Amino acid sequence: MMANFTVALKELKDLLGDRLETSPSVRQHHAHDESFHQPAMPEAVAFPKSTSEVSEIAHICMRHHMPMLPFGTGTAMEGGVNAIHGGLSIDMSLMNKILSVSAEDMDCVVQAGVTRKQLNEYIRDRGVFFPIDPGADASIGGMAATRASGTNAVRYGTMREAVLSLTVVLADGKIVKTSSRARKSAAGYDLTRLFVGSEGTLCIICEITLRLHAVPEAISAAVCSFSSLKDAIDTVIETIQMGVPVARIELLDAVAIEAVNQFSHTDYPLLPHLFLEFHGTQQWVAEQAEIVKELSSEHQGGDFQWAFNTEERNALWQARHDLAYAARARRPNARIYSTDVCVPLSRLADCILETVVDITGTGFSMPIVGHVGDGNFHVVAAVDPSNAEELKVIDAFHDRLIRRALSVGGTCTGEHGIGQGKKSYLQEELPAGVDIMKIIKGSLDPDNLMNPGKVIDIE
Amino acid sequence: MMANFTVALKELKDLLGDRLETSPSVRQHHAHDESFHQPAMPEAVAFPKSTSEVSEIAHICMRHHMPMLPFGTGTAMEGGVNAIHGGLSIDMSLMNKILSVSAEDMDCVVQAGVTRKQLNEYIRDRGVFFPIDPGADASIGGMAATRASGTNAVRYGTMREAVLSLTVVLADGKIVKTSSRARKSAAGYDLTRLFVGSEGTLCIICEITLRLHAVPEAISAAVCSFSSLKDAIDTVIETIQMGVPVARIELLDAVAIEAVNQFSHTDYPLLPHLFLEFHGTQQWVAEQAEIVKELSSEHQGGDFQWAFNTEERNALWQARHDLAYAARARRPNARIYSTDVCVPLSRLADCILETVVDITGTGFSMPIVGHVGDGNFHVVAAVDPSNAEELKVIDAFHDRLIRRALSVGGTCTGEHGIGQGKKSYLQEELPAGVDIMKIIKGSLDPDNLMNPGKVIDIE
Ligand SMILES: Cc1cc2nc3c(=O)[nH]c(=O)nc-3n(C[C@H](O)[C@H](O)[C@H](O)COP(=O)(O)OP(=O)(O)OC[C@H]3O[C@@H](n4cnc5c(N)ncnc54)[C@H](O)[C@@H]3O)c2cc1C
Ligand SMILES: Cc1cc2nc3c(=O)[nH]c(=O)nc-3n(C[C@H](O)[C@H](O)[C@H](O)COP(=O)(O)OP(=O)(O)OC[C@H]3O[C@@H](n4cnc5c(N)ncnc54)[C@H](O)[C@@H]3O)c2cc1C
Repeated sequence: MMANFTVALKELKDLLGDRLETSPSVRQHHAHDESFHQPAMPEAVAFPKSTSEVSEIAHICMRHHMPMLPFGTGTAMEGGVNAIHGGLSIDMSLMNKILSVSAEDMDCVVQAGVTRKQLNEYIRDRGVFFPIDPGADASIGGMAATRASGTNAVRYGTMREAVLSLTVVLADGKIVKTSSRARKSAAGYDLTRLFVGSEGTLCIICEITLRLHAVPEAISAAVCSFSSLKDAIDTVIETIQMGVPVARIELLDAVAIEAVNQFSHTDYPLLPHLFLEFHGTQQWVAEQAEIVKELSSEHQGGDFQWAFNTEERNALWQARHDLAYAARARRPNARIYSTDVCVPLSRLADCILETVVDITGTGFSMPIVGHVGDGNFHVVAAVDPSNAEELKVIDAFHDRLIRRALSVGGTCTGEHGIGQGKKSYLQEELPAGVDIMKIIKGSLDPDNLMNPGKVIDIE
Repeated sequence: MMANFTVALKELKDLLGDRLETSPSVRQHHAHDESFHQPAMPEAVAFPKSTSEVSEIAHICMRHHMPMLPFGTGTAMEGGVNAIHGGLSIDMSLMNKILSVSAEDMDCVVQAGVTRKQLNEYIRDRGVFFPIDPGADASIGGMAATRASGTNAVRYGTMREAVLSLTVVLADGKIVKTSSRARKSAAGYDLTRLFVGSEGTLCIICEITLRLHAVPEAISAAVCSFSSLKDAIDTVIETIQMGVPVARIELLDAVAIEAVNQFSHTDYPLLPHLFLEFHGTQQWVAEQAEIVKELSSEHQGGDFQWAFNTEERNALWQARHDLAYAARARRPNARIYSTDVCVPLSRLADCILETVVDITGTGFSMPIVGHVGDGNFHVVAAVDPSNAEELKVIDAFHDRLIRRALSVGGTCTGEHGIGQGKKSYLQEELPAGVDIMKIIKGSLDPDNLMNPGKVIDIE
């Protein structure tokens, strides 16, 4: 696929001027995400400013058979931005305008390069907020492309629920709006959902209409330790089964707590913990907390340590969000290798407990952290990617973990996506499904120019 | 397209025996749904019992170029089951097994012919329920195929959120499972959501994994009258904007109330009403009701009339659900012509008020009823389909209504689907989107055998 793209680059330069970068440092920056996957440099990086410019870029790439690799903020976990077949990285960071906000309709329209923190900062005084929070300050486009979620998903859903409509550019440059702004629609095939989670392999997401939520009257967060993982997990399962609408319910095992303590200068006891948050009216928040407290004390949970004001709460969640960085910081020059299985709730305890035993067997210390209300958890390894022996051990562990999840009806990825690392597992998880994905990919991107080599392999 | 299907029918007879029906009465029954759309008989009706039988049926139809028309319970509103190009109706009513229920995981697997009431009856003692409730006792397969919703959608979402996974049969007989059972997944393209809402034009839905919800500790329903439509609507909008998680918030205008009173022997005052339901703990239900009561009294709402026990509640919602039948019953031999626009909340009041004026201009009396928490409302006409003059007036009204909705960013259909009636409006709503839908349809059903002539026109 590594053709000579001289003509394409000249046309792109004419279109974009300074906003086409070919310097090694910029290309290097776009060669990888936050994961351990081998970096792979694009030939150049484009910085479009508008949807129509993205469309023109696609026209040029299409004509010259140059792969197109959308780039958000490069915080993903599966090597999705890496230019494994060369091509043009399309960095969306200059498309960072918030186009409209309607507090009345509880929605907004943003360009793909807007980040989640930028958006929440902007709408802060409007009585609404955008809940989806992968730890990193990712771009909304990247989050839509990976079907991201995070700690709030148990209450507010994932990007699948958050996105009302998209404006995308296809491989041939066609601009497509996928849906109206209505909160509910039965108008034709659900193109919005088809493109959410397509990881840059079907289209470049340019604009996103997002559903916002009312800022709750009261928010309170708490931390609670347990003497065993099983107790913590059982508390979660019962909370969900009772239908308590917790806004966040996150599990950290003792290893994770140790990493957090070191990285974020906290001093939690070295035990499994739940990090919780409740949203609602004052009275309803108190009642939810009471219910969960009762469940947790039935499972020998410790006292709830409350974080009442905004700063304390932010510090608590920042510590949680930084877990991947905290794990990485435990080793010099390490890269993050995060697993991401998600299983039915009834199998969560077994799956995590078997995984703990498995981790011990590897000889590596790897924290477990999870959006456990959804059955989703991560084992976060800090690896030295140049150490083949080590990678082999972690790969084998990852393989066993995924098979464990698949064998109980789970998925190989709850929120990070397939990228380059999990293509064979997707095949195993949905063998007939992958055939259909290939047909759809082939029909929308016949020359396989959109992020080739990711999600599915086209022969 | 009306080919001679003698050979196909012989092969189908060999496969299905008595479960292939060619009698005029059975064919007639499968020629229409509950709407005014012109009936169109299929050549025959198949009653498969298993997914593999559906697959064999598709093989036969594919070989002989015989259109396939999935049939659930025939309660839909857009003429989706009508055999406008002839072919084989595939009635899913014998595929009515509930294959598994996990109260722990709050999910279940059902065959497509299971109806929503059958399912809720079956799981009644398990502490879980399935919330989606189009008025009719529709099949789960039909509901998935139309992306149905109903009164509970404001709290629990639509079939888009309710379906975790599907097993479908494609035009060529291939059996495809679309997703794992995990509550959250980022594993490849979202085939589940692509097929939910495809109205039988991409596949035959055979099995559905559904998300269930915990039965709330307390449920209470109330009815409240308002002196004006605007007051009722403003109460709804403020309730939603405050983030009160009402389980149901339904608007009925005075004409609708009159129809309900006649059909269901109630005696509500002839004023606009909200029908409400609250779910939660005892205390939280009381608090939610208090908040909404306060909002409604700011808008001159009347007293809340409570329905506390299950029978009273069921009677209340049955009356609401029967509205379409109530409207129809006002004229002998009438058929239902229901509109279905959905608009952003901030435009809802204007849109409904303009529509009221428009209705008056038509000279027909048509009730308005709405799932207004989502911005979705229906004007329900009872028409004599043989009266061309009358149909012309209602069609023109419908046309103006849809344009009114589209002009404020709404959709031509919130929950009924496109069927045969709204193809041109879909084109207007999502012009570039329809091109993509055609490409996808062409790639999965190249011979246009799956419910041809519905949703999109293939040249
Ligand atoms: C500390 C840390 C914690 C994290 N925690 C979570 C978590 O809790 N939940 C979670 O879901 N994720 C988490 N992540 C992963 C990551 O933040 C998410 O995957 C995020 O959605 C990636 O967004 P991005 O803008 O960085 O995308 P990138 O990394 O730039 O790109 C990711 C993929 O999306 C494609 N893409 C990017 N932008 C577009 C676009 N506009 N159009 C089409 N395709 C595009 C790329 O081609 C690539 O395939 C975490 C990451 C870190 C570093
Ligand atoms: C009184 C009344 C009130 C209603 N209220 C609502 C409401 O509030 N909300 C709402 O959403 N709808 C409502 N409806 C419409 C209707 O109930 C829904 O559209 C329902 O989802 C139709 O289901 P069904 O099984 O009857 O489908 P059918 O009418 O049999 O079929 C509908 C469409 O789906 C396709 N289909 C059916 N089964 C399958 C399958 N297994 N695989 C693939 N395609 C299939 C058909 O080909 C057709 O195109 C109402 C209808 C009535 C009569």
